[in-house]
This record gives sequence, C-alpha cells and structure tokens, in this order.
Amino acid sequence: MKPVKSRKDIVVLDTSLFVNPDVRNDFGSSPTEAVKGFVAIAERIPALEFYMPSSIFRELMNFVDQRKIPGSFLSIVHQKSPSKHELTCPAFLLYELIEDIRDRINKGLRIAEKAVRNAGKVDEREVIQGVRKSYREALREGIIDSKEDVDLIRLAKELNALLVTVDHGAIAWAEKLGVRWLLPEKFRDYLMSFIEAENKGRKAAPKKQGISK
Amino acid sequence: MKPVKSRKDIVVLDTSLFVNPDVRNDFGSSPTEAVKGFVAIAERIPALEFYMPSSIFRELMNFVDQRKIPGSFLSIVHQKSPSKHELTCPAFLLYELIEDIRDRINKGLRIAEKAVRNAGKVDEREVIQGVRKSYREALREGIIDSKEDVDLIRLAKELNALLVTVDHGAIAWAEKLGVRWLLPEKFRDYLMSFIEAENKGRKAAPKKQGISK
Repeated sequence: MKPVKSRKDIVVLDTSLFVNPDVRNDFGSSPTEAVKGFVAIAERIPALEFYMPSSIFRELMNFVDQRKIPGSFLSIVHQKSPSKHELTCPAFLLYELIEDIRDRINKGLRIAEKAVRNAGKVDEREVIQGVRKSYREALREGIIDSKEDVDLIRLAKELNALLVTVDHGAIAWAEKLGVRWLLPEKFRDYLMSFIEAENKGRKAAPKKQGISK
Repeated sequence: MKPVKSRKDIVVLDTSLFVNPDVRNDFGSSPTEAVKGFVAIAERIPALEFYMPSSIFRELMNFVDQRKIPGSFLSIVHQKSPSKHELTCPAFLLYELIEDIRDRINKGLRIAEKAVRNAGKVDEREVIQGVRKSYREALREGIIDSKEDVDLIRLAKELNALLVTVDHGAIAWAEKLGVRWLLPEKFRDYLMSFIEAENKGRKAAPKKQGISK
C-alpha cells in the first residue's frame, strides 16, 4: 500500500534562503523572523514536504535566535543527511571540479600579480579591497565550496526534490545532475500559489453550477 | 583456467617519472632517453606488467621525441583508461577535496594581501616572484590538480597496482584509497632488484649441492 504521503512534492531548502538578505526579506526582516514567516506559510501547504540536510540545519542554527524558533519548524522541515553520504558520487563531478579549480587558481594568481603591480600607484587599502573582491569572484563564485553544499545537492537528488538555494555553485551542480531548482526570489510566490490554488478550489466549488451562461 | 599472467605484479606509471629531472636521471638525461633507459631495464623483467592511463600517455608524448621512442615501449607499457571513468568515485574524496580547496583558497588570498602590503617596501619583481612561489605552494602542492592525476589513481586502484609517481597530490590520494605507491627515486632500484634476483637464482642453481659445509 502506497502512503498518500508519497504523492507530495519534496522541497530541499538551503540556509541562504533565511540568511541572504536579498531573499530572506520575502519572509522576515531577520533570519529568525524569516524562519517564523516561512513556517506561517508552509504549515498551510499540505501538498509539500520540506527537507534540509542536517549539516545545513546546523549551519542555520548559528544564524538564528534558537529560543525564538517555533517548534513547528522542526516538524515542517525534516532534517536528513543524504543517505549515500559515505558511498559514491558520479566521477565526472570530481573531474569537472578539478579542472574548474585549476583554471580558477590560475586566475587567482594573475589577480594577485596585478594587485602587486598596482600597489605603488593607488591607495594600498583600495588595492587590498579590490584584490579581495576580484579574488573571491574568481575563486568562489559559482563553485561548490563546502561540504554542506554537496549535502544539499545530494539530498535533493536522492529525494528527487526541488532545490531552493541562492548559491550559484549549488545551482550549477543541480544542473549537472538533473536536479530541479527554483530561483529563491520566486520561492514565496511558489508557496503562495499552493495556498491560492486551494482557496480558489474552495470558492470555486459552490459556484460550479453558475459557470455556464 | 587462470592465465599465468595474473600472477604478475602490475605497476602504474606517471609521466613525471620520465619528465621530472630529479627522477628521470635514473633512466636517462632527457625524457626521450629516460623512456629508452626504462625500456632497456623493463624488458628484462617478465614478472612485472606496466600500465599508463591513456591520458597520461598522451601527456608524456608531448615531452619526448616520438620518432626516437622504441616500439617496444608500446608493448611493455600498456595504455588503458580506468574503466569506471564515467561512473562513480568514493564521495568522501569529493568532500575532502572541497574542504581542502576551501582552506587553500583562503591562504591564497592572505598571500595576495601580504604581497600588496610589501609591494611598496621591496623591489616589485622580487615581490611578484615571491607571491608566485608562495601561492603555488599553498594552492598546488600536495593536491590533485588534473584529470590525468585522477585517472592515474583510479587505474592503479582498479588494477590493484603499485603506483609510481612524483606527484604528492597523487600520493596523498593513493594513501586515502589504499593504493600501494613507491617513492620514484627508488623505482630504478626496485626494478633492478627483480633482475638481480633472477641473476642470483641462475647462479645459485648449479651451486646448490655445494652450500652445506
């Protein structure tokens, strides 16, 4: 017998959703408020199940006031590590990661060299700020750079879930692995569409007979 | 029926063995000479089988005068890609690699910042040489940084072979994966021990009766 539960769509959430100011403001003005705002919406959507890798959950707990997080957050968002954590991953990811990093490391050195050449000409502080920005862009952006990110994608893959994250590196890997993903700035609209659809359903039902002219 | 061949020990070779001057001098004064020198020894050792991943073989061909490579090199050193090339790898490698790179990237930025601060004080060329050296040490040494290196280790693992390489990154991964490896500066001695053992065997055989007092 298949449980009804198995018809639900699954959504895997990243910390960034509640922490990154560009996105979390859709749910609340601080990480803690964003979690509360999310809970208030999510508990009205029985059609969706929410998951977070345990590592990501721990990360999130560092950003919020844990005493203010409603207990229902724990029942709405399931914590689960990808179950194949210790086993295997597609080898092509390893190959691509290594090639990607190699290029980025070369870029990083060119940035450092350029900064040294500019150091005499411009204000030192300005040069250092510039080198930090360019270096981070070259070596960090659009690349998976933490174990938590790997957990995130592997869990989404395992659960055949929709991944919601701000991280471009995670999105790039979701694409490689055929994991569905959603622009986080559309996440609130996505959730609200379930609530609206249900409300319409309720209103529409009694009207059924009055639709035809 | 098991072929006699299966009793042979297998050795997987890296390009570095013929290219890195610290090591190749054991076999010859140039990459081409080193290949010839290796062939001259290896063809006297029927107890060993030699392999090279195809990608590593192609890499080596860029360093040698291909017209001068003896045909027997191709029969002595088998080219073979790891057969699980497109499939899976242990996930822990991915996790460890990502964490390792993360630390190294942070170090790289600190090196760049320090260089900018020194730029005014010391000769610019000197600073740039210094930054190149420190950056390479921090971001490259002891880390797998090419697809060829991954091929090398996976082939050695697949064939349960002895890995011979100068690359510290490859050695580190060999350790993680339980692949046997040999210090390359001992490789010639290793090969010669097979030849010496056989010579001793031949000499010892007729003496057999004269050993006891």
